[in-house]
Formats: sequence, C-alpha cells, structure tokens
Amino acid sequence: MSKKLTSRAEDYSKWYNELVVKADLAENSAVRGCMVIKPYGYAIWEKMQAELDRMFKETGHENAYFPLFVPKSLFEAEEKNAEGFAKECAVVTHYRLQNDPDKPGKLRVDPEAKLEEELVVRPTSEAIIWNTYRNWIQSYRDLPILINQWANVVRWEMRTRLFLRTAEFLWQEGHTAHETKAEALAEAKTMNNVYATFVEKFMAIPVVQGVKTESERFAGAEETYCIEALMQDGKALQAGTSHFLGQNFAKAFDVKYANKEGKQDYVWATSWGVSTRLMGALIMTHSDDNGLVLPPNLAPNQVVIVPIYKNEDQLSEITEVANTIMSDLRAKGITVKFDNRDTQRPGAKFAQHELQGVPLRIAIGPKDLENGTVELARRDTLTKSIVTLNELAVTVEELLKEIQETLFNKALNFRDTHVTEVDTFEEFKNVLETKTGFVSAHWDGTNETEEKIKELTKATIRCIPLDMKEEEGVCVYSGKPSKGRVLFAKAY
Amino acid sequence: MSKKLTSRAEDYSKWYNELVVKADLAENSAVRGCMVIKPYGYAIWEKMQAELDRMFKETGHENAYFPLFVPKSLFEAEEKNAEGFAKECAVVTHYRLQNDPDKPGKLRVDPEAKLEEELVVRPTSEAIIWNTYRNWIQSYRDLPILINQWANVVRWEMRTRLFLRTAEFLWQEGHTAHETKAEALAEAKTMNNVYATFVEKFMAIPVVQGVKTESERFAGAEETYCIEALMQDGKALQAGTSHFLGQNFAKAFDVKYANKEGKQDYVWATSWGVSTRLMGALIMTHSDDNGLVLPPNLAPNQVVIVPIYKNEDQLSEITEVANTIMSDLRAKGITVKFDNRDTQRPGAKFAQHELQGVPLRIAIGPKDLENGTVELARRDTLTKSIVTLNELAVTVEELLKEIQETLFNKALNFRDTHVTEVDTFEEFKNVLETKTGFVSAHWDGTNETEEKIKELTKATIRCIPLDMKEEEGVCVYSGKPSKGRVLFAKAY
Repeated sequence: MSKKLTSRAEDYSKWYNELVVKADLAENSAVRGCMVIKPYGYAIWEKMQAELDRMFKETGHENAYFPLFVPKSLFEAEEKNAEGFAKECAVVTHYRLQNDPDKPGKLRVDPEAKLEEELVVRPTSEAIIWNTYRNWIQSYRDLPILINQWANVVRWEMRTRLFLRTAEFLWQEGHTAHETKAEALAEAKTMNNVYATFVEKFMAIPVVQGVKTESERFAGAEETYCIEALMQDGKALQAGTSHFLGQNFAKAFDVKYANKEGKQDYVWATSWGVSTRLMGALIMTHSDDNGLVLPPNLAPNQVVIVPIYKNEDQLSEITEVANTIMSDLRAKGITVKFDNRDTQRPGAKFAQHELQGVPLRIAIGPKDLENGTVELARRDTLTKSIVTLNELAVTVEELLKEIQETLFNKALNFRDTHVTEVDTFEEFKNVLETKTGFVSAHWDGTNETEEKIKELTKATIRCIPLDMKEEEGVCVYSGKPSKGRVLFAKAY
Repeated sequence: MSKKLTSRAEDYSKWYNELVVKADLAENSAVRGCMVIKPYGYAIWEKMQAELDRMFKETGHENAYFPLFVPKSLFEAEEKNAEGFAKECAVVTHYRLQNDPDKPGKLRVDPEAKLEEELVVRPTSEAIIWNTYRNWIQSYRDLPILINQWANVVRWEMRTRLFLRTAEFLWQEGHTAHETKAEALAEAKTMNNVYATFVEKFMAIPVVQGVKTESERFAGAEETYCIEALMQDGKALQAGTSHFLGQNFAKAFDVKYANKEGKQDYVWATSWGVSTRLMGALIMTHSDDNGLVLPPNLAPNQVVIVPIYKNEDQLSEITEVANTIMSDLRAKGITVKFDNRDTQRPGAKFAQHELQGVPLRIAIGPKDLENGTVELARRDTLTKSIVTLNELAVTVEELLKEIQETLFNKALNFRDTHVTEVDTFEEFKNVLETKTGFVSAHWDGTNETEEKIKELTKATIRCIPLDMKEEEGVCVYSGKPSKGRVLFAKAY
C-alpha cells in the first residue's frame, strides 16, 4: 500500500496489474494461470451476481447445476465446438494418487486408476447440458427450457492476466431450448440486451451491441451477439456474448421434440455468458492513477467514515455521531462502514479507501464535533466539501446517484471521442497507432480481408453494430463494395 | 409423475431414489457419480445458501474464491490430509486434446501436452488456501482471517447416491486463521453452533452436537465437531462438520505470525463445511409416501393456487381472485405461484404439488367464487379446510409458521424415541437390528473397540455428545471402565 501505483501514462498494463493486487481484488496462485479472488474483489463480484441473477429470474430463467466434467465422447460430439476448445482444455485421466515407491513422503498417479474414458474439465457446458436436455424434451409442452448456471470453467490459456484471461474463471452460462428459430433468435437478442442494460446501468460502462463476424463467433454458434466496451488505453474488451446456436447441438445430441401437429423436429438453442472478466472491464474503465474507482452500485461499502481523534474521549464522541450517521444512511439503503481500527492512522486509512475506490469518505474530527459538520470526500473527482450533519444523509444519497451517472457519462464521452470513421487504409493504420479506440470502417465481408487486416494492424472486427447505418462504401482494405461500417479495434 | 412412489416401508432406499428424481430435484448424469441438480432442487439449495451466507456474514466472515486445482506438491504437504484424500481424487495430467490419428472425428489426449506437475481437483481446499495464507499473514494485525468459499469439490467415491454421496458436490468451506488455540477452538465451536441453529430452525431437522472420535475425524484435524441427524429409517446422517486443525496446516505450509511481543509462532486454524448432502437430509427427514414435504422456510413456493374451471369466464373470475390473494400474501413476504397452466388438469397439478412438497395449496372453483371461499390443503398433514377470502392471508401466514414448527417437533419426537440406552452388547445388537436409531452406550475410548463394534454391527460412533453426562459405567463391548455414553448408529 505504501508504494505509489505506476501511472497509466507510464505503463498501462503494469498499472492494471499493480492495482488489482494492491486494491486487494485478486492475486496469482500456485496454479499456473489460476487466480485467487480476494474478499474485497469477491464482494464486488457478488454484487454483480446478485443483480444479474435478479435480471435473469425477471426474464423467466431458473438456475440449475450440471457436472464439472464432460466425458470425451460427449465433448467431441459437436464438431466445431470440440475443435474450438480441444486445444486448451484440462483433462482428468486418473482417479487416485498413491505413495510414490521411489520418493518417500511423495505421491504419484496410481497407474491402475486410469479412467476408461478421459474427462474434460468444462470449458463451457453446451455438451453436457444438451446431452441432458435430450431426456427432458419430448414435446412442445416441455419447451422452452430457460436455464442458467453459475459455475467455474477452465480454459488452458497460455497467456493469462488477472480477471481478463485466467485458466479458471467464474461465470454464468445460460442454456435455453426453443421450438422455433425465431424464438431462439429473440432469446439470444434479449439476453444480449440484458447484458447491455446491466453493464451500462449497473457498472456504468457504455457498450456497443453488435454481432460477431464468422471468424470471431463462438465455436458451434450460428450467430454471436456481443457487447463491446472501450478501455482507457483505447483497447476494446468483449464484455459479454449471447449465441444463437441454431440446431447444431440438438443435432449433435439428437434432441427432438414433437410439435403441436405431432411432427418431430430438432430443438433450437441459445447460450449466453458473462464472467469475472467483467471485473477487468470495471477496473479499466473507471479507475485512475490513485487506484480503483467504483460506481456506487458495485461498491461493497458506498461510504466509509474515518474518525480523527487524539484521545479516547474524542473517539467516543465521534463514535456517537458516526452511529447516528450510519443508521440514517442505512435507512436509505446505503452501505456504510465505520473504520475505527486503532492499528492504522487516518492518513493510511484515507490512502487505502482511495486505492480501494470507496465512492464517498466521511472524516470526523474534533472541529467537526464543535461545528456539527463532517468532511465529505468524493473518490471520482477527489474533491472535498464540508457538510452539516443535518444535510448529510440527503447529500450522500444525491451524490451517490450523481457519481454513478458521472462515471457513465465520463466513460461514454471517452468512448464517443474514440470512435473514428476512416475511409482509407492509411488513416486506419494511423488511428490505431496514434489515437487508438474503435475504428469505424467499411469492410467487404470476407474472412480473407479480416485476416489480412488483423495481420497488418493487430486490429480485429469487434462487431457489426446492431444499429449500423446502411451506407454505400468501399472496403478500406480491398476496395470492394460494402453496405455499412463495422467497428475495428485492438482488443483484450 | 403418473406412477406412484414406492413406499418407505416397502423399500426405503428405492423410495428415496425415486422421490429425488420424480420431484425434479436431481438426476444422474453421463459422468459417473456426478449429478445434475435440476431447477426445483437448485431453488431449494439457493434458499439454504442465502440463509447460511447471511449467518456467516453476521458472524464476521467474508467470501472469497480459491483455485479448483491443487498442484500435487501442495496436496501432499499435510501428510494426514493427503493420505485421507489421495485414494479418491480426480487428477488432471494433460492440458490439450488433439485429433486421434487412428479414429477420424475422435479426439485423444495430446501426449505432448502433459503437465509438468499433476493437478488434483480439490476434494477440499486446506492445501491451496494455506499455501495462500502464508503470504497474507505476517503479524497478529493480519489475524484473524475469517473466510468462506462457495465451491464445487470432487471426491472419487465408488458408491454414489444422489445428494448423499456424489463424486462432485457443491458446498461451502470456511477456512479461518487465528492467533491462539483458544480462539481457533472457539471459532470451530461457534460454526458448529451456527450449523446446528441453521439445520434446526431453518430446515426443521433436530441435531445432536458432538465431537468425532479420532478415527472419524477429518484428515488433518485435531478435533472435529459435528451435527448428527436421524433419518426416518433410523440411520444417522452427518449434516455438517467444523474442524479445529491445530497448527497442522500452518506447519505444513510454514505460516507464522509475529505476536504482540514480536515473537514468531505458527498460526491456529479451523475449517468447516456443509454441502448439497443437506438436501438428502431434508428429503429423508420430512418426506412421506406421497412425496416431498418441505418446511416453509425452504419451499421455493410456499403456496400454490390452482384454478378449477370449466370455461374461460370462470377462469378469468378466478384469476381476479387469485391476483388479489397473491398480492395479499406477497405483502406478507410469502412466496406464491398461480398454476394456471392449460396443459394440465387440476388433478395432475394437485399430484405434482404434493409430490414436490408445496406446503399449502389453495384451490378455487366456481362454488368458491359464489361463497367467497377457497379450499386450503396442507401438505404435511394432507388435511383440507374451507377458508373465507378475508381470513385467508392471516390463516396462511399462521399455518406456515405452524407447519415449520410441526415438522420440527415431529422429527424431534421421532429422534427422541429413537435414542436407546443400552448396557449390554446383546441389547446393543438387538436395538440395531430391530428398532434402529441412535444407541447410547458406554465405550472404553479405544480405536480397537470402536473398530470391532463396527465390524460386528456396522454401527459407528456418530459422536461424543457435547452435553454428555458424566456417568460411571463399563464399555458395552470390552467391559472396561467408561465415564459417559456416546452415540452409536448405522449411518449414511
């Protein structure tokens, strides 16, 4: 805590890594690529979970739980999905350890406890779930199935970064089954919309809704809807995806239903997920060189009260005032903590709460006791003011709303000033090298061009925006005709 | 749903298995020993989680998340713990699959993607957590650490049963670190007490609190506190455990702290957990030959309303009444569902809600509309009454409380009439063969006797009750002196 953070200008990536650790959000573990989510970080994730869970239930979904393991034969059933995840999956091959005869006190895999069939630790659960749905679905009366699962998944990524890309991560995955293509498509869009609403309203992060190009689609999907956000370094971050899976999984797992006319047909599917990656988006959207900045909706403590005192008498007077403030704030549904630790000085407490992004800090000292006031400090603007006790609760309530809005508007303004329309490939490269952000450009719709642009600039097509305007143009790379602009960016 | 359940008298074990599946709680999956928890079962588990989580936070604990995998070298560090779990652990040895050159369309483990060190899928997290705590703890100022984790764990059990014993299960595991032995012991007892309160007040299941004998202790613990419940077939079920771990893990992972005098000492530890096994306890304590019986605290829907109608006009009148009832009940915090599915007849709905244990069912038919009444049916007693609309909300509220109490008292009465004091081994065996339940008997305190009794009767010492009375006696098996009675039973 004592050493200052690296600044964003100096080294954005280092700033991020330091911030995650110093603000007590997460840290690396003894397992390659797997993180420990520390209590403060987990408390923020719990707030996200609670709100998302509420939104899922409000849109008719129920939670369930499916096995961690996918037998290899199920894993390989949907070919594209298998191909997409086979290269990075953890495989269980044995079910027992035994004493190592060569190394006393050490264990080794028991060669006699080899599984008949290897088990893949789920990288995503379509295979195991669709194998289950086959038994749940006979007729249209069994549809739709609208299920969500909160779970851990494992993808053996080679380059990992706390929250952004980890070998194990926490997420939710929705898996729905429908009678018709139209219904499944509507579900995929609805859930992408739920994500957009959550990320914008709750996390104060503006997003672009769009669809992925074929090469960026989820393995096994026919259409991938997504929400894309822009980080402060001008790189894009995919914050959530919602897939229309067509009948691919129904065919791979033979899931048919009898429609109202008694005719058999394959079921239509969607899946959708967001993960602890959102923690990375949260950090990189709002935080500054002093540390984390939290939107009030996500702050484990929205307000912290720090007493400033020279003796026990003063502390007991301040405690009395603090108790009144806390009960007033809690009555308004505001979370507040009285930081009366006697192991830390006020300066160290201020630094910690700033680093951890507590939206509002109240300091109460002897002069405040005399004047019936407190000092109120805002984390996002780093401004302070003196507020009288009888105005405090209302002021805090209003400020929390204001901070939530301010953070969103600030991020929106940043995003909007970092979308650049270009019409030549020179401009395209120039923007990516200087200003960064989203580049809005015409594209000829081919994989080849997309691949070539990626090779030359490291930028990928983040999405074809849902609100794309029809506009005649020519591809910025190939010169071939195009009907509208798509968004390119370098991305996390 | 159509076929009746096997009765408990006929085949208790079959009754349980059928009930779990038919009431839509869980089912077996394609993965040996792993279950699918279906939405209705998961909704009950969510209610347990929410209440336990509240109780943990109220007692000062925070949630966090640690990796799913334990590197073998950490797994083997605490010798007894390793020995206890090595025989039944899933081991990840590879991180990639590739196309099988011999079988087109099939995958196989890529022999070149072998991990340098095998990873054990956590059967419990002491090892990975204490390896992390080492970096978190320097001085007494860093203590206590009071952390809980909600997670999945894997124990490769050979004989599995839905909820009671599964290869993968969901649980919470608390892991705390303390300055002193006394503080750690107090924590272990406190959490066992939290479990007892939760299981008795919330789940309506009476428990005996006690400590385990040495042979039944958690691998690596110095004392294991437990809560033991009695199922309707007279077998005991361990519903939760809380371990005092001494300094075993601190020593294995070299976790020391500087005390107030600056002296280095090893940290004291506890761990405690309950799992989806509680679902099994819930089912086997309260349910009957008609299906699940749920205490109102755990019912996803406490009340269901079934309309009985012959035409659309009647349905719309009933809907109006139902809406009023629902808003009255919801205002009292009661969960209620209007089952207006047109794909099912009322009889089928009644059967389903009975099978699924909904505590109260309201039926509204044309006659009720005329009379301003409803029919109110109680799941636990299977009794019905006619209630006027203006008395309904209050009646429902009172009945839900009464059902919760009745279920507890009924289970308590069963338990109390199934604790038999015996003083000879003949009586001991006789009780186990006829009446079953807990057998309260003197024991000489040795492993040998415990082992011998288990061999002869299949009964184990469930616990040495915390409220054991001092009483001079002689061991029921060896005749050696004993200071008090312990509880034996056959167990799940």
